[in-house]
Amino acid sequence: MAETIAALATPPGVAGLSVIRISGDRAIDIAQKCFLGSRRFNVPEAQRIYFGKFYNDDALIDNVTVSIFLAPNSYTGEDAVEIGCHGGVFVYSQILDTLIEKGCKLAEPGEFTKRAFLNGKMDLTQVEAVADIIHTQSVPGVITAARQLNGKFTERLCQFRQKLLNIASLLELELDFIEEDIVFAKKDDIKEQINETLKFCNDLTTSFIESEILRSGYFVGIAGYPNSGKSTLFYSMLGRQRSITSHIPGTTRDYIEENLVIGGISVRLADTAGLRETGDIIELEGIKMVLNILEQSNMILIINDMSVSISNSEKLVKSLKIEYPGKKILLVQNKIDKVEEFDINDFEAVYISAKKSIGLDQLKNRIGSEAKKSSERVKDILINQRHSLLLKQAAKELENAIAAIENGFENELIAIDIRRAIKTFGEITGESWNEEILNNIFSKFCIGK
Amino acid sequence: MAETIAALATPPGVAGLSVIRISGDRAIDIAQKCFLGSRRFNVPEAQRIYFGKFYNDDALIDNVTVSIFLAPNSYTGEDAVEIGCHGGVFVYSQILDTLIEKGCKLAEPGEFTKRAFLNGKMDLTQVEAVADIIHTQSVPGVITAARQLNGKFTERLCQFRQKLLNIASLLELELDFIEEDIVFAKKDDIKEQINETLKFCNDLTTSFIESEILRSGYFVGIAGYPNSGKSTLFYSMLGRQRSITSHIPGTTRDYIEENLVIGGISVRLADTAGLRETGDIIELEGIKMVLNILEQSNMILIINDMSVSISNSEKLVKSLKIEYPGKKILLVQNKIDKVEEFDINDFEAVYISAKKSIGLDQLKNRIGSEAKKSSERVKDILINQRHSLLLKQAAKELENAIAAIENGFENELIAIDIRRAIKTFGEITGESWNEEILNNIFSKFCIGK
Repeated sequence: MAETIAALATPPGVAGLSVIRISGDRAIDIAQKCFLGSRRFNVPEAQRIYFGKFYNDDALIDNVTVSIFLAPNSYTGEDAVEIGCHGGVFVYSQILDTLIEKGCKLAEPGEFTKRAFLNGKMDLTQVEAVADIIHTQSVPGVITAARQLNGKFTERLCQFRQKLLNIASLLELELDFIEEDIVFAKKDDIKEQINETLKFCNDLTTSFIESEILRSGYFVGIAGYPNSGKSTLFYSMLGRQRSITSHIPGTTRDYIEENLVIGGISVRLADTAGLRETGDIIELEGIKMVLNILEQSNMILIINDMSVSISNSEKLVKSLKIEYPGKKILLVQNKIDKVEEFDINDFEAVYISAKKSIGLDQLKNRIGSEAKKSSERVKDILINQRHSLLLKQAAKELENAIAAIENGFENELIAIDIRRAIKTFGEITGESWNEEILNNIFSKFCIGK
Repeated sequence: MAETIAALATPPGVAGLSVIRISGDRAIDIAQKCFLGSRRFNVPEAQRIYFGKFYNDDALIDNVTVSIFLAPNSYTGEDAVEIGCHGGVFVYSQILDTLIEKGCKLAEPGEFTKRAFLNGKMDLTQVEAVADIIHTQSVPGVITAARQLNGKFTERLCQFRQKLLNIASLLELELDFIEEDIVFAKKDDIKEQINETLKFCNDLTTSFIESEILRSGYFVGIAGYPNSGKSTLFYSMLGRQRSITSHIPGTTRDYIEENLVIGGISVRLADTAGLRETGDIIELEGIKMVLNILEQSNMILIINDMSVSISNSEKLVKSLKIEYPGKKILLVQNKIDKVEEFDINDFEAVYISAKKSIGLDQLKNRIGSEAKKSSERVKDILINQRHSLLLKQAAKELENAIAAIENGFENELIAIDIRRAIKTFGEITGESWNEEILNNIFSKFCIGK
């Protein structure tokens, strides 16, 4: 018999409403001990809301709503109760204290979802979708996680897993008829099918980085020579004044990061210290932090001070394009307000004045469309690091199987590699799991989920 | 026809669950446009929870629960829907955005409760109890506010109001029979009844300060000579280290306040700069801030450095007792670890070592029992400033009525004062209200309540 657990399910803090969740065999029994409504739920009706008063013995704590969910039709698959009370810290604390006094245990982080998993209400990719849906930093991230929550990832994994199971079975079946020399499937067909599955694994693995955009936001690094107006741009884009913007080159000593939302995607904007040149090479000393930021960025804005020269940052642009060939690099011509006339030498560039807030909308649109492009590459599935590692492992096992076929190995040996990949697929969905995997996943959950 | 409003009802932030509230004629209609469940609520059943998916047109946003409340049996008295979604910022924002796209208006602060008031679901003292229950800083505060939410204050006000109505009616009835010289009630009886009501008003008005303890917490100021260990005590009581505790007298330049909870009551602990003496008088220059804190405190702790002398702070204790005769003043003998032996000269005092954390529990118990005593003086009713002002006004009107009786004025004049008090009582419950009163009350509410 599972202990009955309780926790605050809504964020802590002051608001109109807070909800406390109870789950377990005694959920309804314990809730009843504290509840007095016009209608009692002695014979509780499922999916029904009761109005009434919550008491700690004789002391009335609050007017509440009590929602009843009966096993197995609840989030956890157990009997569950949700108590909606006024959103005051002392109110929900007092209600939670009372429930614990009456026999509930305070839930551990992720314990509700862990029970849902253990009771077969969801598989591991769905569990991870719950975490993603909560923590995701973009609207497309929400939508993708919602699809995954509804089993889309598992569905596709299962299709490929089934294919592999069929192949393995055929190969093993042939072993029984080895004397008769009967062949159930041509090795070339098998190879093709394994290759398809391999492609599925590899495609997903490469979408890992794009998945991170949906989860953590699109990362934009601001780079440029000292005093080109990077900090001014940073604060203008956030729509507020910086306390001090100095004219002394190298004022931005540390790296500063802030979030803004462009087109439903959280954009992490990072201001960096100015890059200096010594001869033809970017001076690397003391700017390791900057390069580290640029390394992590999805997009790099290079800010050029037009009032010095429109082509002043040409070398820097060239160096960074060589250094980061895969990244989107955008030249931002700044201080347009200080320049009378100029010849456009780069039609890709954006022309702005950070100080006078000219051209900022255009710049935001450019960032937004790049972020959108990246997020759209992710289709149905949000790959996280665990998935990525397991998919890489499965890919390796499938490559071994293909190598075994090409080397004319026996069915037995080919089937072993395929069986390994099948098992690895099972680890992704949680068909095969262990306590360590679960603890690792649920450690990232908050209490009340 | 009232517009349909929507807002996040739970605190913003990341958690297992967030709830979005919708209220108004189109609440169910709009919710339906975005919802797809195994069972539809075309013919919605009241107090029923539906499981399903929330869509923005074709995009699945989240798996949600939808709770249906039908007018007039809802918080606002209108048709209402509560959507429970995963507690991620981008999830609830997206759901709220979708609802607004489909025709909802974003609710103003307190708008749900304002509608409840305007639809006769609660009176003004209950509205104020909702705010109190959310913001209160103590368990007794929650309990008192919950009683008030259930109409206890209004009930008592109405009893006295009814009494006054009877008196006024009798006095006015006598006017009709003035020719016959018939007396329906002896003036002495009337006076006694008015006096009872007057006492009720005065008792409540004096409980205003105690009500504040339940609302905002019990305020404890730490005072003492420089270097007596006030800051060390402050941080020891909070259970953490201060970054720098210097030995230079006067290190605590500004006033610092922190909260801790003792026995279910929020205790606001304020550390102050050291008080100095010049001759016999407390030096007032530069310590106005300190005196301001002590003025606001419910309790003052005077910290004495025993290692200097056990009677070192005698003058300070005497001065403060004269200055603040109504406040609880507790002498705290500090640095007991540095003293070999001593004669107890004050059995009321507490003996501690802030540095070695000796005697802190005893000190907390003393603070807790004082806080409890103060909070217990409040019985059923949480008086706020608005109530206090109106009760004072009613008291003045009743005093005028008594004076009128004592001066042998005519019934007509006595009745006028009584009618005024009746009207003032009505303002407390909201029987007579105007837009200004409402705006003032609801301006303190958060969005979603």
